[in-house]
Amino acid sequence: MEEIVMSKFRLEHDALGTVKVPQHAAWGAQTERSRQNFKIGPHMPYTVVTALLHIKKAAARTNAELGNLSQHKAALIVQTIDQLLADDHQADFPLVIYQTGSGTQTNMNVNEVICHYAAKLNPHLPLSPNDDVNCSQSSNDTFPAAMMISAYQACQSLLPVIKALITTLVKKQQAFQQIVKIGRTHLQDATPLTVGQEISGWISALQHDVQFLEQNLSTLLELPLGGTAVGTGLNTITGFDQQIVAQLAQDYQLPFRVAPNKFQGLAHHSGLNFIHGSLKTLASDLLKIGNDIRFLASGPRAGYAELTIPANEPGSSIMPGKVNPTQVEALTMVIARVMGNDVTINFAASQGNFEMNVYKPIIIAAFLETTQLLTQSITSFNQKLVQGLQVNQARIQTLLNHSLMLVTALTPHIGYEKSAQIAQAAERDHTTLREAALKSGVITAAEFDRWVDPKVMTHPEKRN
Amino acid sequence: MEEIVMSKFRLEHDALGTVKVPQHAAWGAQTERSRQNFKIGPHMPYTVVTALLHIKKAAARTNAELGNLSQHKAALIVQTIDQLLADDHQADFPLVIYQTGSGTQTNMNVNEVICHYAAKLNPHLPLSPNDDVNCSQSSNDTFPAAMMISAYQACQSLLPVIKALITTLVKKQQAFQQIVKIGRTHLQDATPLTVGQEISGWISALQHDVQFLEQNLSTLLELPLGGTAVGTGLNTITGFDQQIVAQLAQDYQLPFRVAPNKFQGLAHHSGLNFIHGSLKTLASDLLKIGNDIRFLASGPRAGYAELTIPANEPGSSIMPGKVNPTQVEALTMVIARVMGNDVTINFAASQGNFEMNVYKPIIIAAFLETTQLLTQSITSFNQKLVQGLQVNQARIQTLLNHSLMLVTALTPHIGYEKSAQIAQAAERDHTTLREAALKSGVITAAEFDRWVDPKVMTHPEKRN
Amino acid sequence: MEEIVMSKFRLEHDALGTVKVPQHAAWGAQTERSRQNFKIGPHMPYTVVTALLHIKKAAARTNAELGNLSQHKAALIVQTIDQLLADDHQADFPLVIYQTGSGTQTNMNVNEVICHYAAKLNPHLPLSPNDDVNCSQSSNDTFPAAMMISAYQACQSLLPVIKALITTLVKKQQAFQQIVKIGRTHLQDATPLTVGQEISGWISALQHDVQFLEQNLSTLLELPLGGTAVGTGLNTITGFDQQIVAQLAQDYQLPFRVAPNKFQGLAHHSGLNFIHGSLKTLASDLLKIGNDIRFLASGPRAGYAELTIPANEPGSSIMPGKVNPTQVEALTMVIARVMGNDVTINFAASQGNFEMNVYKPIIIAAFLETTQLLTQSITSFNQKLVQGLQVNQARIQTLLNHSLMLVTALTPHIGYEKSAQIAQAAERDHTTLREAALKSGVITAAEFDRWVDPKVMTHPEKRN
Amino acid sequence: MEEIVMSKFRLEHDALGTVKVPQHAAWGAQTERSRQNFKIGPHMPYTVVTALLHIKKAAARTNAELGNLSQHKAALIVQTIDQLLADDHQADFPLVIYQTGSGTQTNMNVNEVICHYAAKLNPHLPLSPNDDVNCSQSSNDTFPAAMMISAYQACQSLLPVIKALITTLVKKQQAFQQIVKIGRTHLQDATPLTVGQEISGWISALQHDVQFLEQNLSTLLELPLGGTAVGTGLNTITGFDQQIVAQLAQDYQLPFRVAPNKFQGLAHHSGLNFIHGSLKTLASDLLKIGNDIRFLASGPRAGYAELTIPANEPGSSIMPGKVNPTQVEALTMVIARVMGNDVTINFAASQGNFEMNVYKPIIIAAFLETTQLLTQSITSFNQKLVQGLQVNQARIQTLLNHSLMLVTALTPHIGYEKSAQIAQAAERDHTTLREAALKSGVITAAEFDRWVDPKVMTHPEKRN
Repeated sequence: MEEIVMSKFRLEHDALGTVKVPQHAAWGAQTERSRQNFKIGPHMPYTVVTALLHIKKAAARTNAELGNLSQHKAALIVQTIDQLLADDHQADFPLVIYQTGSGTQTNMNVNEVICHYAAKLNPHLPLSPNDDVNCSQSSNDTFPAAMMISAYQACQSLLPVIKALITTLVKKQQAFQQIVKIGRTHLQDATPLTVGQEISGWISALQHDVQFLEQNLSTLLELPLGGTAVGTGLNTITGFDQQIVAQLAQDYQLPFRVAPNKFQGLAHHSGLNFIHGSLKTLASDLLKIGNDIRFLASGPRAGYAELTIPANEPGSSIMPGKVNPTQVEALTMVIARVMGNDVTINFAASQGNFEMNVYKPIIIAAFLETTQLLTQSITSFNQKLVQGLQVNQARIQTLLNHSLMLVTALTPHIGYEKSAQIAQAAERDHTTLREAALKSGVITAAEFDRWVDPKVMTHPEKRN
Repeated sequence: MEEIVMSKFRLEHDALGTVKVPQHAAWGAQTERSRQNFKIGPHMPYTVVTALLHIKKAAARTNAELGNLSQHKAALIVQTIDQLLADDHQADFPLVIYQTGSGTQTNMNVNEVICHYAAKLNPHLPLSPNDDVNCSQSSNDTFPAAMMISAYQACQSLLPVIKALITTLVKKQQAFQQIVKIGRTHLQDATPLTVGQEISGWISALQHDVQFLEQNLSTLLELPLGGTAVGTGLNTITGFDQQIVAQLAQDYQLPFRVAPNKFQGLAHHSGLNFIHGSLKTLASDLLKIGNDIRFLASGPRAGYAELTIPANEPGSSIMPGKVNPTQVEALTMVIARVMGNDVTINFAASQGNFEMNVYKPIIIAAFLETTQLLTQSITSFNQKLVQGLQVNQARIQTLLNHSLMLVTALTPHIGYEKSAQIAQAAERDHTTLREAALKSGVITAAEFDRWVDPKVMTHPEKRN
Repeated sequence: MEEIVMSKFRLEHDALGTVKVPQHAAWGAQTERSRQNFKIGPHMPYTVVTALLHIKKAAARTNAELGNLSQHKAALIVQTIDQLLADDHQADFPLVIYQTGSGTQTNMNVNEVICHYAAKLNPHLPLSPNDDVNCSQSSNDTFPAAMMISAYQACQSLLPVIKALITTLVKKQQAFQQIVKIGRTHLQDATPLTVGQEISGWISALQHDVQFLEQNLSTLLELPLGGTAVGTGLNTITGFDQQIVAQLAQDYQLPFRVAPNKFQGLAHHSGLNFIHGSLKTLASDLLKIGNDIRFLASGPRAGYAELTIPANEPGSSIMPGKVNPTQVEALTMVIARVMGNDVTINFAASQGNFEMNVYKPIIIAAFLETTQLLTQSITSFNQKLVQGLQVNQARIQTLLNHSLMLVTALTPHIGYEKSAQIAQAAERDHTTLREAALKSGVITAAEFDRWVDPKVMTHPEKRN
Repeated sequence: MEEIVMSKFRLEHDALGTVKVPQHAAWGAQTERSRQNFKIGPHMPYTVVTALLHIKKAAARTNAELGNLSQHKAALIVQTIDQLLADDHQADFPLVIYQTGSGTQTNMNVNEVICHYAAKLNPHLPLSPNDDVNCSQSSNDTFPAAMMISAYQACQSLLPVIKALITTLVKKQQAFQQIVKIGRTHLQDATPLTVGQEISGWISALQHDVQFLEQNLSTLLELPLGGTAVGTGLNTITGFDQQIVAQLAQDYQLPFRVAPNKFQGLAHHSGLNFIHGSLKTLASDLLKIGNDIRFLASGPRAGYAELTIPANEPGSSIMPGKVNPTQVEALTMVIARVMGNDVTINFAASQGNFEMNVYKPIIIAAFLETTQLLTQSITSFNQKLVQGLQVNQARIQTLLNHSLMLVTALTPHIGYEKSAQIAQAAERDHTTLREAALKSGVITAAEFDRWVDPKVMTHPEKRN
């Protein structure tokens, strides 16, 4: 790369001619062409870039071991990358998501930036972005490998956040285990359960989602490195794939493995698509939980009002008790996004042709957006809402007392017909079941209080 | 149920009054109300009905064992259901998918039909749909259990079909393992691979999808039976849940288990949503495979024309060789449907409230539509297209010979620059690489033929 | 078509050889091949078949006028089709949606059946399915034209159903125009509005949706007839397109027009995709309306309970007042389906290649499923729920009286600070605002009743 | 707002207590609370903020005219906003999309920042964010109005970009109008058309999409201003709505109108949902066009290779002619995003409850992301690819010459049977149709050349 220093630009040459590159840019001609040709949307997620840096480092070591690269060059590459990883170099990676569908330009951006900084460390050992830094690699195998690495890490960050939410919910479940409330099916009053039981359903849903994610996450450990341009491994030496993946496994302390089939690794993205399917399931479950909480906390006077949530912001300056469920709202807007991302990813994953899928950047960008938004919003939801969730015991008791569903407890004692008459009378006269029962003359107050025990209705009858 | 025989209708009474039921209908008042109130869309899938029949049978046995139902009644219920399962009784179950969101009306349809046929077997032992057939149950737990059972069975039917397709593809992979062809990335000519390698990518994708399905399918074995109306188990006896599920496990010879949390089982449908996520991944992978096949078989003259597919129908009467990839077209239309079903199910699963999700029928109907369409279309695709897939060796060889990508094989021998000049000359003069190479005078025909060996380019260099 | 009568089959020959066709089938060889090759999913919607019959009829007349077909043959075709349209001939059209993506096989099914019945009417004037019935046509232009015709008609059937719902809602709006109720934002109690105003929002949403549909529906009047195989009009005579479309316009009494560009008409389905976009918008609005109604009718004791809905089925035999919002549930399950169909159609419409889109059957099947389900479910929702919708005035008044939001009406008279203190006292002491206000000593009962007039809060202040 | 200057923070008080605000921040307590409580995802699109600024300005003027605000205060607000609009003040609006679902916090951010800068302009005329800047408004009406304004403007920016693409395509259509090429249906060789005709199909699709957008865009001109908290207009004076909207219409020179129903305007987002439906249709059509271009430009040797596209980046350093269709790839990744956004918006729009939809920020963010990505990527696609699109005439001619579909032109002269035999012979012997025809001895070279004229096959037969 011949460079001519100019006032504000330097000139770089590539196969298509001369390119003006900003004078102090760490990138080279190919990055600059992409920067000019693709002014569309936001930057490539930086975690993809850092995964590529790790791959370049492992490749340098492996190439040196296999005799494809001098030890000096490999050491210089490793040293440079360690330095790049230690600092924030986002400004050196200006390319956007909506570029070439293979991510080639970001791969070359990484190669060029490494050469640039290596030249500062050792001006006497010039490196070639293609021949040295990209040795035994192609964008076509490094980029999907970086997708897998960054996606795996993102899921690893998400999992403890879901578990933390579960932990909070378990505390609430235990605290409210004995509080009996009216159940609701079809939104209509139904037989009672405890607040703890209700929360246990939310916990179980999240536990299912955690299990779905954990049970399958290892599919993201498959790296198609060593496949190069079309998956055959042209320009690599036998064994390169195993060695570079072993090196990465050691560097990351993660059990990466060589993709069982590199053609699939380049042209399908089944694993990312499937794992995102577990995230849309999580999102779907969170919507139900979020909706339950905001409806149960609705009021203060004209809603369900069984739960109270923390007042993080002034609801209304003149209206005490108006606490808007804003944390739920942020969470459910994230869920709307995740639902869309699932369609984006599924569509994009379906559009591969022959030896490649050229929707790689949008697949990984949408995946990482999902994981990041879920991580942030679940954390916020947990800390700023669920941890402060309380029950409104008086209200719960009032609703339970006024319920007509408890009449089912009378049936074994006075029969179906008389029970129904009592319930109908209560409904007609707008009284409680107890009042109607006593008024009927069929049972006494003592009998009613002995027989109608909502707590007993929250579990199966004990076997004799 | 008092019955008055009329000319064409009989009258039945329920809590809301009198209902005219067709004279010879096996169903009762509640079914008839639903039939009149919901004239929307197609019938509830029959496999849901048969799963409910199995549940009723297991419930009768369990209730008899636990002392909730007389042995006589239980035996009559079992006998009746066995008879119903032995014949085709679809006409007795006229209700549609778009009914109440809990599936209650289909549950009652089943209860009523059992009573009807039981009365024919033994008119002297009248059964109550609610008290006897539905004993220890609620629609709210039987319907989701029937969803799980029918979904599990549908996936069990789908799996061997995918595996059969894999088997066919493996045969093709082996048969074409040595046929070298031009690769394509970004749709552009790229370095070569073998037809077998290309097919191996398809196989690997499908193997991933099978693994995703098999690894997670057991989530559908969780049955929320014993939860009754809201998940608490009201109106059951302790142990009922374990016993009925054990009975079903024995009847089906499947390792069903009691749902770890019945509140989740009634109000979330995480498992069905997640498993459908694996089916959309399968669909997405199939689209890539189908597109590859139809493009590679395009022609006969003005397409890729590397593959030939069976002529199942006359393409065009005057146009020999016009073979439309109709099996792919049917398959990919199924895929479009599956993509939509995934959105339907994810949305529906997210809309639960409190103790119930009232989108149960559409969730299971969309799920079973997906599995049925995939089962049918993959079978058809396999048998009527993939099994007859052949390669057009002459065409493959011609495209390979004309490719300029093979020039990379010259680089180690004559250097990058001279190699590029030869390739450029070939492109400019519309000749083959071989012709341009010989014309350049740089290498001999013998050298070219020794050095340019596409087969060698389909795997990594052997380690020394 | 040489026919050999056999015991149960007859033999028919086509370009690929001999086909066994069921002896009494009205269809021929090509239909039978499709019937054998595609055993996937449900039948092609019959309205597509009838639209094709109309097209064949108009084509025969036009061809006769243009001299491409004898008057005798044309008359026979017209006579035959009139007879087919007069009766139910669904059994003669056994092909499924998931067939060839151009719908060719259904087009040939129609051609073959016409010939079959024509031969009964006049055995001495044999017709050729291809040369006579399909004259000047190709599946590639008749099938998309049939898609447009059937979709347009389906929307025409849907529109009055939406308008009927609007009419019902307007009656309710007028009936409840003066009933003041508490508003709710973020699900939290807010300032009051009238029930009529709340309903007016639903009406307005539906009016928007009607307008979106009506304003754009004419895009479905564009028929690509005369385009034949690839859109060029090969094998037609200049003017055929205008004449056949004019004939169809007269037959249907609909202002059909020749598609402005037939290449687009065969390869894109922009119009169907876009119009379905208006249906997903309608579905989305209906979900909000349905959810509002079922929540506002929730209870009877532990929900909002401001509205009451008809009891179409026994909710619970022992529980008076338990009326499940089943009509809403059916409607919202339809909505879940429509949301999925929109994804299916958008995906399918995007997948055209070159001169054709081969997802035609699934596009039209999903479109017609949407319109049919919406038509049926909106009708049911209107007749069986909305027409019987009533308000629970006592409950609405109680909730309004207990609301603290009315305090804003005091601000102009006693200032912000004292108003807030009164509201806070009411919240703390669980009393009404009125009680707290009087207890505060700041205002009199007369003042409170004069100043706090919720009705006044439901509109802007009159300009002086 | 009492302020205490501290070292790095200042303290502000609101109804919930004291808030530490960064010392030099232009925002106040409510913004800071949101900033702390919602650390989720990217910033609210700035165009929403600027629309709110315009609304505040029009509100100040209207309030002054109606006597609700002093002329001095109104003038100060107007002056401040003009200054804010003149410079880039993005740093003053730090809130994110995933906040409260009403956008209240961004509305307050705007109110607070106006007060902050107004105090610099005139410290002696203190303004209240709520009483003065937000006078006669609520977040609940200003935020949806800002959604409509920013969405309308975004569509206005997109439209000329689509039209510019159409203009380019029209030039290409005209340039290539006479170049006859082989058509393709089902990806299989079909009858010929001209390159110009093929392009005309793309143009027509885009013209449809433009029409869909233009014909319906005015629905976004409906502003629910004057609705305030729940749509009733509480705290406004009669006429405020008409006057503020008239003011905005004048300021923007756009025919805004008062929303016909403000309850709908706050709780449904039908218009945005529907208009996005036209954008997904555009995206769907663009995918077909993009796919056509990249397939037709595939090669250089082993693809269709009928078109050539500009080489914007080096494809491969050693491989001349390898030009990856990267602009198409960027465009189609945008399309994948738009497809997801449509699902996000449709879902979000469906989830309103009672007097509000609390998914406002995600709806507008996804909408504006779609319009921006489409604007950018279509511009890039047009300028960097379509403008440089050329045909490869030699290749097109070769494919046409080798086609067997031209045999249909012989039929009128030598009959179906002999024509078919010639075509079959050509296919069997791998020769051209012409060679096979001459070899058959049935016709002469002169006859063949006179009869087989592909150009004639690209339009209907002229009427006699």
